[in-house]
Amino acid sequence: MMTEDVQIILASGSPRRKELLAQMGLAFETMPSDLEEKITGDTPSETVESLSYQKAADIASRIREGGKQQERKKRLVIGSDTIVVCGGKVMGKPRTEEEAFSMLSRIQGRVHAVYTGVTIAIIENDNISYEIFSKKASVTVHSMNEQEIRAYIAKGESMDKAGAYGIQGSFAMFVDEIQGEYSTVLGLPVAGLYQALKKIEESWK
Amino acid sequence: MMTEDVQIILASGSPRRKELLAQMGLAFETMPSDLEEKITGDTPSETVESLSYQKAADIASRIREGGKQQERKKRLVIGSDTIVVCGGKVMGKPRTEEEAFSMLSRIQGRVHAVYTGVTIAIIENDNISYEIFSKKASVTVHSMNEQEIRAYIAKGESMDKAGAYGIQGSFAMFVDEIQGEYSTVLGLPVAGLYQALKKIEESWK
Repeated sequence: MMTEDVQIILASGSPRRKELLAQMGLAFETMPSDLEEKITGDTPSETVESLSYQKAADIASRIREGGKQQERKKRLVIGSDTIVVCGGKVMGKPRTEEEAFSMLSRIQGRVHAVYTGVTIAIIENDNISYEIFSKKASVTVHSMNEQEIRAYIAKGESMDKAGAYGIQGSFAMFVDEIQGEYSTVLGLPVAGLYQALKKIEESWK
Repeated sequence: MMTEDVQIILASGSPRRKELLAQMGLAFETMPSDLEEKITGDTPSETVESLSYQKAADIASRIREGGKQQERKKRLVIGSDTIVVCGGKVMGKPRTEEEAFSMLSRIQGRVHAVYTGVTIAIIENDNISYEIFSKKASVTVHSMNEQEIRAYIAKGESMDKAGAYGIQGSFAMFVDEIQGEYSTVLGLPVAGLYQALKKIEESWK
């Protein structure tokens, strides 16, 4: 997928997103957006779509401004953002270990939702168009006692992740079930992205 | 979990199972069973439970015979086996690329079930007791055309896996949804295993 005259830019510095995109067999560069994101949107889906849009649009407009000398005809910028929603409360990344403890205490023993929004900015000459979607996954976490939560936080896997856990690490021991795309929980729904990229590629034929 | 006077042996040579067990923070050795397994059981759950039992029991009895000189009081042997069931057909590992093609053609565009059975053999002195369970996960695969199937097989990720795919690799691009424990699809349900080990540990107190 995606011939060599298409340049792909990931507007994120997340190692998990880089790994997922690499796993898809795509060659890409990373250019994390440092934009102060504004939370907008009435629903979780709208919120993550808007956040992913802000990241992708930030990098896409910077590339369009600076990149006239580029030979490549087409460029795609991928932005993505993830939030966790549990019992009506939206959770981003914890800022302190106490906040991580409070998030994990909330999600243990019940089901929560993970939303990931994806925006693909399509740059062709001076024009930018956008393909935006979001995916939801439900995650059932086994009950955890205080000792288990403290031991998990002590491993250092909480701090840079929405909801204070990383499903790809040792937290898997506490995940009874997920419903949805696993990579949605990781922060980049690869099946959804693959289908969107295929659609864009077909529109170029 | 599991103090140092408990020795854990994984009765499998699968790199994925090793990785999952290591991720749980457990120290263990591997001792793959080379027993010719006999498929028994009326249901998929019974089948994988029986297959996992055969592996664990094979290694556990070998250890009991040979291991009198061991200082450790308690030893646990973990056996595990996975099958894929799609449209009433049970699928193990493909033996040829054509068989992989036929399996992937069958699972594309629909839902299939993955069953993983786990047996923990508990060796205390001359006594062996068993803890056995199985988990099911449902996997929805996006429709794939012949070119996509051939390209996936060409990556070499099909040949040593039940159902001819590995969900942790680039096949994730085609997985729309899973329902169940992700690690069940990988071949060792870590949340189920963690709870079973906790139960065994508590029974020793």
